[in-house]
Amino acid sequence: MPEHAIRARQHLAEAVGRRMYERDHISHALGITLEAIRPGYARLTMRVRQDMLNSHQLLHGGMTFTLADTAFAYACNSHDRTAVATGCNIVFPATGHEGDQLTAEAVECHLSGRSGVCDVTVTNQKGEVIALFRGQSRQMQGTVLAGEDD
Amino acid sequence: MPEHAIRARQHLAEAVGRRMYERDHISHALGITLEAIRPGYARLTMRVRQDMLNSHQLLHGGMTFTLADTAFAYACNSHDRTAVATGCNIVFPATGHEGDQLTAEAVECHLSGRSGVCDVTVTNQKGEVIALFRGQSRQMQGTVLAGEDD
Amino acid sequence: MPEHAIRARQHLAEAVGRRMYERDHISHALGITLEAIRPGYARLTMRVRQDMLNSHQLLHGGMTFTLADTAFAYACNSHDRTAVATGCNIVFPATGHEGDQLTAEAVECHLSGRSGVCDVTVTNQKGEVIALFRGQSRQMQGTVLAGEDD
Amino acid sequence: MPEHAIRARQHLAEAVGRRMYERDHISHALGITLEAIRPGYARLTMRVRQDMLNSHQLLHGGMTFTLADTAFAYACNSHDRTAVATGCNIVFPATGHEGDQLTAEAVECHLSGRSGVCDVTVTNQKGEVIALFRGQSRQMQGTVLAGEDD
Repeated sequence: MPEHAIRARQHLAEAVGRRMYERDHISHALGITLEAIRPGYARLTMRVRQDMLNSHQLLHGGMTFTLADTAFAYACNSHDRTAVATGCNIVFPATGHEGDQLTAEAVECHLSGRSGVCDVTVTNQKGEVIALFRGQSRQMQGTVLAGEDD
Repeated sequence: MPEHAIRARQHLAEAVGRRMYERDHISHALGITLEAIRPGYARLTMRVRQDMLNSHQLLHGGMTFTLADTAFAYACNSHDRTAVATGCNIVFPATGHEGDQLTAEAVECHLSGRSGVCDVTVTNQKGEVIALFRGQSRQMQGTVLAGEDD
Repeated sequence: MPEHAIRARQHLAEAVGRRMYERDHISHALGITLEAIRPGYARLTMRVRQDMLNSHQLLHGGMTFTLADTAFAYACNSHDRTAVATGCNIVFPATGHEGDQLTAEAVECHLSGRSGVCDVTVTNQKGEVIALFRGQSRQMQGTVLAGEDD
Repeated sequence: MPEHAIRARQHLAEAVGRRMYERDHISHALGITLEAIRPGYARLTMRVRQDMLNSHQLLHGGMTFTLADTAFAYACNSHDRTAVATGCNIVFPATGHEGDQLTAEAVECHLSGRSGVCDVTVTNQKGEVIALFRGQSRQMQGTVLAGEDD
């Protein structure tokens, strides 16, 4: 792929990331930050707060899943083709604790036709793996940026 | 099983449910209500709020997962043996919208030794299936009620 | 649904079952028998042979999966709309041994538009659960019986 | 890790591979070949035969799963600690056809305590991805080589 095409795809991914993040209620509610986005890739962070804990006083698996699923959404929408999750699988090798700084890194590992597969790894501040997530996506009609006015 | 043993197990499940719910930060933050708990069973509800929406203005899959995963936790801790999720799988046949009243019904469909499998169905107010969740659990040392003083 | 429509759907399912089984190389190779088929349902059996064992001399998980996946295929093609698996999840609560008589029971638990979800339970001759399988299907163009001449 | 320790672990993995393969009924029945084994890694191949086809005359998903699951087994037993699968997830981005030469590459991507996660990619002779498999393993008491006499 020529240099200018690579640059164009990267600009598109960044525009999609900004656009998605603006209207992303859940990321704002949970303090999720979009650190990086590239075609088929996204990296997000989240700090574990007390209101994310379950009754064992550990990070609720649903919060870990939400972070991973959000990274998945950014990675698979990064081509500006609206994509939705059809199914996901998550494994929890370890658990998170209050105050942990988590990073979710999403890599689209397969895309054929409109169906994709994306792997997300969630790690804590020590680099320990908290969750391994795999999501299946399906591209729909429409684009993320289409509704943009400016 | 004799009647009194059934009743004892039911009382235990209810005590576990109350105890878990008291300290369950995430359920309180998301407005999740514990409607019913029985040995190997739990039913919870949640109303979809604006801060649970993703950038497509649809219910974030992570919130659906969190509701399902919470129902799973109540069902598989209902025997008062502390249990944790080791892996989960979720399929999203439909999506949720702001204002929807969701119900998650968790049924422990297998328990052998310390390993269990629990199925959760999430439906909306029309009875449409929003998510099918399957979780694998593993019982740990300890009980939910052990720490209780009163 | 009126009685005659129910009967028509049942006849269709049975015709699909016969047609699929005729050309089903793998079922013949493994000695899988189709015991029952109804709309959205199938029950198959298989006896565990020595050539199905892994190096631990236990039933290979792939053989258990194959039996479950076959039951899934019959159940989700039973409407005579060609359907394929897009993803599957399997949990192994126990293992199989040489000589075991296994039964796989597949129930289509959700079908909306062209996407379906089907649960399969594999049990041994004592009724013990060997595997819990969940498959996602997608209906394609075409029917199972279309190619039939007679 | 010093050079000699790396070499020792590699020799152990190869001994485990040979030992497992000798008694691996299913691999012999399906013509599966063990091409390479390293600590936490295995690569196996299989040619698609007519008796591996389903009623659509395509490679049965169960055969793809069996190849992937076998690669998984070699990779997670390669440390000579007996390990079994507790659950697996598979996605089928494409399908296989009679005569295809398939390669399954298994990489143990996580191991903490006795629990591991292993990813397997199955490709055909053109390098197209046929399946993405993720397995969870649990190490048991005992070793693969313990029973060896010679």
